[in-house]
Amino acid sequence: MDPDIEAVFALHHGGKIEVRPTIVVDDLETLSMAYTPGVADVCLAIAADPSLVDAYTWRPNVVAVVTDGTAVLGLGDIGPQASLPVMEGKALLFKNFGGVDAVPIVLGTKDVDEIVAAVTAIAPGFGGINLEDISAPRCFEIERRLQETLPIPVFHDDQHGTAIVVLAAMKNAARVTGRDLADLRVVMLGAGAAGVAVTGLLLTAGIGDVTVVDRKGIVSKDRADLTPTKVSLAEVTNRSGLRGDLRTAMRGADVFVGVSSAHVDEADVALMAPNAMIFSLANPEPEIQPEVAARYASVVATGRSDYPNQINNVLAFPGVFRGALDVRATTVTEGMQIAAAEAIAGVVGADLAPDLVIPSAFDKRVAPAVAEAVARVALAEGVIRPSAGAVRR
Amino acid sequence: MDPDIEAVFALHHGGKIEVRPTIVVDDLETLSMAYTPGVADVCLAIAADPSLVDAYTWRPNVVAVVTDGTAVLGLGDIGPQASLPVMEGKALLFKNFGGVDAVPIVLGTKDVDEIVAAVTAIAPGFGGINLEDISAPRCFEIERRLQETLPIPVFHDDQHGTAIVVLAAMKNAARVTGRDLADLRVVMLGAGAAGVAVTGLLLTAGIGDVTVVDRKGIVSKDRADLTPTKVSLAEVTNRSGLRGDLRTAMRGADVFVGVSSAHVDEADVALMAPNAMIFSLANPEPEIQPEVAARYASVVATGRSDYPNQINNVLAFPGVFRGALDVRATTVTEGMQIAAAEAIAGVVGADLAPDLVIPSAFDKRVAPAVAEAVARVALAEGVIRPSAGAVRR
Repeated sequence: MDPDIEAVFALHHGGKIEVRPTIVVDDLETLSMAYTPGVADVCLAIAADPSLVDAYTWRPNVVAVVTDGTAVLGLGDIGPQASLPVMEGKALLFKNFGGVDAVPIVLGTKDVDEIVAAVTAIAPGFGGINLEDISAPRCFEIERRLQETLPIPVFHDDQHGTAIVVLAAMKNAARVTGRDLADLRVVMLGAGAAGVAVTGLLLTAGIGDVTVVDRKGIVSKDRADLTPTKVSLAEVTNRSGLRGDLRTAMRGADVFVGVSSAHVDEADVALMAPNAMIFSLANPEPEIQPEVAARYASVVATGRSDYPNQINNVLAFPGVFRGALDVRATTVTEGMQIAAAEAIAGVVGADLAPDLVIPSAFDKRVAPAVAEAVARVALAEGVIRPSAGAVRR
Repeated sequence: MDPDIEAVFALHHGGKIEVRPTIVVDDLETLSMAYTPGVADVCLAIAADPSLVDAYTWRPNVVAVVTDGTAVLGLGDIGPQASLPVMEGKALLFKNFGGVDAVPIVLGTKDVDEIVAAVTAIAPGFGGINLEDISAPRCFEIERRLQETLPIPVFHDDQHGTAIVVLAAMKNAARVTGRDLADLRVVMLGAGAAGVAVTGLLLTAGIGDVTVVDRKGIVSKDRADLTPTKVSLAEVTNRSGLRGDLRTAMRGADVFVGVSSAHVDEADVALMAPNAMIFSLANPEPEIQPEVAARYASVVATGRSDYPNQINNVLAFPGVFRGALDVRATTVTEGMQIAAAEAIAGVVGADLAPDLVIPSAFDKRVAPAVAEAVARVALAEGVIRPSAGAVRR
C-alpha cells in the first residue's frame, strides 16, 4: 500500500461516527429522571399529545441514511456492509455541516416492496429519510412510494442533491457568460438517478431544452426500448425531436452535463456552441477531461476536488435537511430545491468568475443559507407538520 | 407541575443522545479521504473481504434498541414515538456503562412478521439487536425467529437482562442466608416476558423448583387455558404439582419473585418459609411493600432506587453487549447469561450483607466484570464470528 492508501484505511479504522449522550447521568437521582421512573412522565405526555415527540426526543433532528448498497459511488452493487463507510461519511457530513444527527441504515434486501416496508416500519423514529446509492430504476419507485405514505421528507440525494448543485452552478455559469437559462440547450449524458432528477429540476427552473442521451443514444419518443421513467423523460425533453447518438445531440449544444461513466471524444466536444458550459461529473474520471473541456467551454465543472468548480452534494443535503427539519417539513418540494440552488449560487456573490461558479465544499456560509431558503419556501408552501413547541438546536 | 416534573421535562428537552463524528474533517484533503474518492478503497476492501466491516466501520460496536412500543415500562401499549424517551435513555446507558453505540429503532407496526422482516432488513448495519418493551407472547416468537436467522446477538432485555440480575441477586441472597440454590423453592408471580425468562434461567442455574403464578393461578399441566409458552413452562416447573391460587403457592416457599403488576396480601407473605427472600420488582409499586416484606424475609429486593438491593437491568445489558461485541459473539447463550450473573454477584464480594446482595447501578466495576465473563464464555462455547482484525474500543 502506498502511504495515501494507508492513511485512508487508518482514518476509517473503527468507523467514523458514534452515538453520545447529550446529558450527564452520573448519579442515581439523574438516572431516575433520565430513565425509570421519571421518563414515564415524558412518555405519557407524548402518548397524550403526539406532537410532543418533537420537543422531548431526538427524533426531529434525526435522519436515516438508507441504502441497499446497489449503486455505491461509481462502484455499483457492492452490498450493504461494503457501503457502510460511505453512509458513515454521509452521517459525519450531516453533523459537521448541518448539525443533523444521521444514522446509517444499510438494508440486506434489494426487493422494492421489502425496502419500502422496512423504511416505513422504522420511520416513526426519524425526522427525515435520506435515500442513498440505490440503483435506478428501483430508486424512483422506492422514493415515490415512501413520499406518498410518510409524513416526513424523503429525499434521494443522488437525484435531488445532485440536481440542486448542478442547477446552482448552471445559474451562475449563465450569469457569468451573460445568458438566460431559457436560451440554453442542455445535453444530459446519463439517464440514471442523477440524470432523471437533474433534467427534471432544470426544466422546472426554466432551462430552454434538455436532450437526454443514454447508452443507446438520444432518448426520443420513437424509441421502443424505453423504461417507464424514460418514456416520461421523452415527453418533456428533446423538443426538437433529435434522433441518433451523442454526436447528434452535442452539435450546437450550449451545456453538457455528464452523469454517466462514459468517455466523450474531443471531436464531439468540438461540435458544441461557442461559450459552452461543461459539467462533467463522472468520478474519478470525468466524461470530458477538464483540460480538453477548457479548449471549447467558458465554464468547466467536475465532481473532483482537485479542479475548480467542484459539484459536491455536500453543498446541498446538510442545509436542505437542516431547513426541512427546522420547520418540520413533510417533504422537499421542487420549489424548496430551486430555493436551495439559488441560495448556493447566491453565496458566490461578487466573487463570481468562470472558475468560481460554485462555492467551496467548506464554505461555512452555504448550509445556513440553504437551510434558511428551504425553510422559508416550506413555510410559504405550507408543507409542514403541526408543532407543539418543537426544538431547534 | 411540581418542580421535579419540571426538572424531568427539562432534562429530556431536545432528546438525550446525538450522533457525532469520531474524526475531524475540516479540509478538502481529509474530506477526500473520509468521503469520495478515498472511501471507495475502503468499500472495495470490505466487498472483497466482508469480515473487514468489523475493522473499518462502526458496525461491530453498534446495537439497535428495537421496540414497537407495546409494553413500555409499566405503561403498556403507548406506541413507538411515546416509547422513544425510554429507548434514548437505554442508548445513553449503553454508552455510559458499556461504551456501546446504541440507536433507537421504534417500529410503526405490531405485526410479528413485519417486525421480523424490518429488523432482518436493517441488521447488516448492526453488531447486535436489543429488543425492548415488546409485549408477550409476541416477544418470544420475534426473538426466536431473529435468533434463528441473524448472525449477531439478539437479546430481549426485559427477559434476559432481568433474569441475569435476579439470578445474581438470588445467588448472593442464598450465600448470605447460608443456603444452596438447589434447595430453594421459588414462587414466580407473573408469566410475561420477564417471568418466563427468569424462570428459565433460574432452572438452568440449578434452582430447586419454581412455581409460576399468573392472573388465573398456579401454572399447572392440567390447566386448559395455557398459551404455548405456558404449556412449556408447566412442563419444567411446579414439580410438586400444586394447583390453585397464589396463596397455595406461597405456603412454605423460600423465595418470592414478583414480575407482575399485582398486589400481594400480607397474609400470603406470612405463609412463606422462615428466612425467606422477597424480590418484588413491580414498579413503581412493588407487589409486596418492602416494609411488609421485611417482617417475613431475610433479604428484600425491589426495582426501586430508593430501597436497598435494586434489581436494575443496567447492571447487565451494557456489560453483556460489551462482552458479546468484543469477541463478535453470534448469540447470548444461557451460559453467557449465567456467567454475567456470577460476575455481577461477584462484584459485591466481602461487602455481602442482606441489604447488599446486588451492586449499585453506578458501581463501575460491574460492566467490565460482566463483559469479561460474557466474552470468556462466548469464546469457550465457540459462538463467535470469524475475525479479520476486528476493532476493540
